[in-house]
Amino acid sequence: MRQSHTVLAVRTPGRSLTEITPELARWVGQAGIADGLLTLFIRHTSASLLIQENADPGVQSDLERFFARLVPDGDALFEHVSEGPDDMPAHVRSALTATQLAVPVLGGRMALGTWQGVYVWEHRRRGHAREVVLHLIGE
Amino acid sequence: MRQSHTVLAVRTPGRSLTEITPELARWVGQAGIADGLLTLFIRHTSASLLIQENADPGVQSDLERFFARLVPDGDALFEHVSEGPDDMPAHVRSALTATQLAVPVLGGRMALGTWQGVYVWEHRRRGHAREVVLHLIGE
Amino acid sequence: MRQSHTVLAVRTPGRSLTEITPELARWVGQAGIADGLLTLFIRHTSASLLIQENADPGVQSDLERFFARLVPDGDALFEHVSEGPDDMPAHVRSALTATQLAVPVLGGRMALGTWQGVYVWEHRRRGHAREVVLHLIGE
Repeated sequence: MRQSHTVLAVRTPGRSLTEITPELARWVGQAGIADGLLTLFIRHTSASLLIQENADPGVQSDLERFFARLVPDGDALFEHVSEGPDDMPAHVRSALTATQLAVPVLGGRMALGTWQGVYVWEHRRRGHAREVVLHLIGE
Repeated sequence: MRQSHTVLAVRTPGRSLTEITPELARWVGQAGIADGLLTLFIRHTSASLLIQENADPGVQSDLERFFARLVPDGDALFEHVSEGPDDMPAHVRSALTATQLAVPVLGGRMALGTWQGVYVWEHRRRGHAREVVLHLIGE
Repeated sequence: MRQSHTVLAVRTPGRSLTEITPELARWVGQAGIADGLLTLFIRHTSASLLIQENADPGVQSDLERFFARLVPDGDALFEHVSEGPDDMPAHVRSALTATQLAVPVLGGRMALGTWQGVYVWEHRRRGHAREVVLHLIGE
């Protein structure tokens, strides 16, 4: 049994989904571990990780619209406003989604379903430099 | 240290919770790994995994009603409607819940709490054939 | 490759976030595993695990207020009321957040971001004795 880890740097363009499936596949493919478990961990509280359909881009824009309605920027409910009207909504959106994901690896590939892609979900309006820690264990 | 994996096929009857705790317990019990970590990964974006109370069935119907109100089928907000009025809500419900779960294994058994059951949550109205990848590592 | 596990007992004072980062850091630090993966699993369905900002306490009170508005205690929607008006909302809040988290460990420390803390989120109004199973694998 062996393990490997790295940090994936992801530059986001502002609130949206940035697909990282190809980068993950590349790193898993060269790690020399055929079967095991890949864990992703995002080191932020205003961005999160998501596995979603990567076929119709309309799914992504609908997700954005739903979350913008559920957790409106500038909501009068929030007291934590010093970092901008989109900061507390970003924390809530992070709490409602995932900071960490794990994907089994089989035959050197992530065991994703046909339509599944892995995304970094930026919840702030402005782009940020985000870090995702990757950990792979197996043999 | 050893690992084992399989794919659990789950036939859902349409939008509802299907308990898979017994199937998981059986597979873990025969894997020959006393202590370790079980990871579940669902290979779909319109169904998810949930750990919830398995005592009162009213908890499950209340969960369904809450999510049906929070993410209504046929919501005019959604543009992705080509796969039916319940498809985009299913994607949103998946984003709000879990695609992956991990449960520590101790003494050959999942370390679940007294009232915890593990479920596949079908978010589409019609039944589907769902796949859950299981990965177990330990010794 | 080695593994270690324990159960962390957490006494909550009622609905709120209880930070457990120092207890986790202590346990990871003395486990003798430099690099690996820490998994947390909460053995309850009315409390959950959360990674959030640990700088401004206003973030925590805003999170509480948002979830109290999203899932109101005593909502007429709910039939499962025998355990009190805050019990079914606690189950819904659990479904919307995390029962399980995993954090990579590097150099004997959790790879958390600068502002990330790990919390037990009590969703019942009264305090409870909660159990979090910790599993660490690595070398």
